[in-house]
Amino acid sequence: MSPTTYTRIVLRERPTGAATPFHFRVERAPLDLHPQAGEVLVKTLYLSLDPHARRWLNPEPGHFAPIQVGDVVRSFGLGVVVEAGAGSSLKVGDLVDGLVGWTEYGVHDAKALQKVDIPQGCDPVDLLGPLGTTGLTAYFGLFDVAHLKAGETLVVSGAAGATGNVVCQLAKRAGARVVAIAGGPEKCAWLERELGVDKAIDYKSASFRADFAAVAPKLDVYFDNVGGEILDLALTQLNRGARVILCGATSEYNSKPKGITNYFQLVMARATMKGFLIFDYESRYAEGRADLVKVIHEGKLKSQFHVVEGIENTPEAFQLLFSGGNTGKLVVKVIDL
Amino acid sequence: MSPTTYTRIVLRERPTGAATPFHFRVERAPLDLHPQAGEVLVKTLYLSLDPHARRWLNPEPGHFAPIQVGDVVRSFGLGVVVEAGAGSSLKVGDLVDGLVGWTEYGVHDAKALQKVDIPQGCDPVDLLGPLGTTGLTAYFGLFDVAHLKAGETLVVSGAAGATGNVVCQLAKRAGARVVAIAGGPEKCAWLERELGVDKAIDYKSASFRADFAAVAPKLDVYFDNVGGEILDLALTQLNRGARVILCGATSEYNSKPKGITNYFQLVMARATMKGFLIFDYESRYAEGRADLVKVIHEGKLKSQFHVVEGIENTPEAFQLLFSGGNTGKLVVKVIDL
Repeated sequence: MSPTTYTRIVLRERPTGAATPFHFRVERAPLDLHPQAGEVLVKTLYLSLDPHARRWLNPEPGHFAPIQVGDVVRSFGLGVVVEAGAGSSLKVGDLVDGLVGWTEYGVHDAKALQKVDIPQGCDPVDLLGPLGTTGLTAYFGLFDVAHLKAGETLVVSGAAGATGNVVCQLAKRAGARVVAIAGGPEKCAWLERELGVDKAIDYKSASFRADFAAVAPKLDVYFDNVGGEILDLALTQLNRGARVILCGATSEYNSKPKGITNYFQLVMARATMKGFLIFDYESRYAEGRADLVKVIHEGKLKSQFHVVEGIENTPEAFQLLFSGGNTGKLVVKVIDL
Repeated sequence: MSPTTYTRIVLRERPTGAATPFHFRVERAPLDLHPQAGEVLVKTLYLSLDPHARRWLNPEPGHFAPIQVGDVVRSFGLGVVVEAGAGSSLKVGDLVDGLVGWTEYGVHDAKALQKVDIPQGCDPVDLLGPLGTTGLTAYFGLFDVAHLKAGETLVVSGAAGATGNVVCQLAKRAGARVVAIAGGPEKCAWLERELGVDKAIDYKSASFRADFAAVAPKLDVYFDNVGGEILDLALTQLNRGARVILCGATSEYNSKPKGITNYFQLVMARATMKGFLIFDYESRYAEGRADLVKVIHEGKLKSQFHVVEGIENTPEAFQLLFSGGNTGKLVVKVIDL
């Protein structure tokens, strides 16, 4: 029997600092949504929780327009088409990837969603992790932006996070020496034992600066998910011709950025700091996914998820991204397939 | 008649902030310098005063070792060989370019100096300006590092300075739209009238932020000689795929760097921030100089010098680099050829 109501979460108030459950409102609404021509009704299976989504809550436009107060919170996720409007490019039962939002059900322009298939030996949720923008970010960031080569020293911050853990695994497989920065001895142990990084260092440790200098005094690639102070420190440890890849800046999203003071080290090291957005690689997602599926089949890319159950827990789960509460990709399981 | 004494200037005390005449000592010494085998005695004609030399006064090593207290101050310059040791690769009368130092006379390993010729239609001092590392920095920075293309908008800070004025002229000739940032209405007028930049904006003006945003809301290349706050502002005005070329950071050399907070704009703009050092291009200096001579002969690259007379005035002149006191390349004329 179909449900008659559904849950959705809207922005109640813009956060100025960290986004907490206070800033969102969980609403229950009648399920009388019907797609028009070209539209589809999507039932959400999983929500992808991503640090960069914090920026969408700010009033300043970025890659996407700001989310407005009262709107369903924008979010990537995985869903299934349950009703299709006339002439829609998608049909009932199609698995789709896209901006489903923090809602159990939503009507979308079919063209704004991507129909996806579950590769053999993979789980649907893998499409939000190693085979989603998270994995693709690691893949294109490492090989297309950073041009990582075997034998180079790669340092990655936020190494136990969604993108970080894939970076670690792909970089190891590419023959790099991998130094992983993460918070706390448990994550570090996990990175060394489970993901096989050469060395994991704990940024919460009192000896972090000394540890970092000892382990990677001259790094070739710095894959940055965190920004701020650790990035600033990394800038003092660049090998000649180093590439600093700006992927995320989780330490900076919740407040006015503290910034970096050592940028002139880019001159001394003849180094490059480069920003990229995965959305620019959309035409190459299929190519990247095909490669990543191969690596999964080789057993060299393990899926790492932190799953929270129930859409109503999304606002609270979102905070884990900034407290270092998740190991692997953070998702919310909304409804079973 | 040969002089029996000569003047040299040594580091008296390391500056922690701005370097002032207090930090140097002008000495008079007997002229009993004689080159050994492979060495030459060089009479200094011109000293090149460069902002990056401020960093050599710090205790931390950079591209060069720190200058030690009591040492003659390291400096690029132009000299003439007045005595040659046995087997020296240079001979008396050779014009040489290199680290002559703040001294009227000095003994050097002949191999550490570069013999130079004065191209037709040029003045010896041009070898420290448009044909020296200054001009070569602009040349390789624009075309080899930034890959400036016709029709792009280039913004250059420190535009009236040594490198900046050459950047303006070469970028105009390459068909770019050139926006020059300089201090004060006189420099701005000079940049527009004499160098033909499309627009010069005064960073000392109260309306600077608004002026910058109006004139170059989306820039393709930012050629940075200054660093700090203006760089940070430029980062908010990047066109997609912009290149931020770090050449100098005069605003940051005299103190603990203030840094930049908007580096994450490199991600939003898929932009690159790149540092380079002209010394890496040594094997291509001849190629660059040959091109620059052509541009001089075309009349599209005017030499711009600020000449201070007398070596004893060097410490005071050095301050002009940081107060915005010079227009064009700052040199000290030491002894007539």
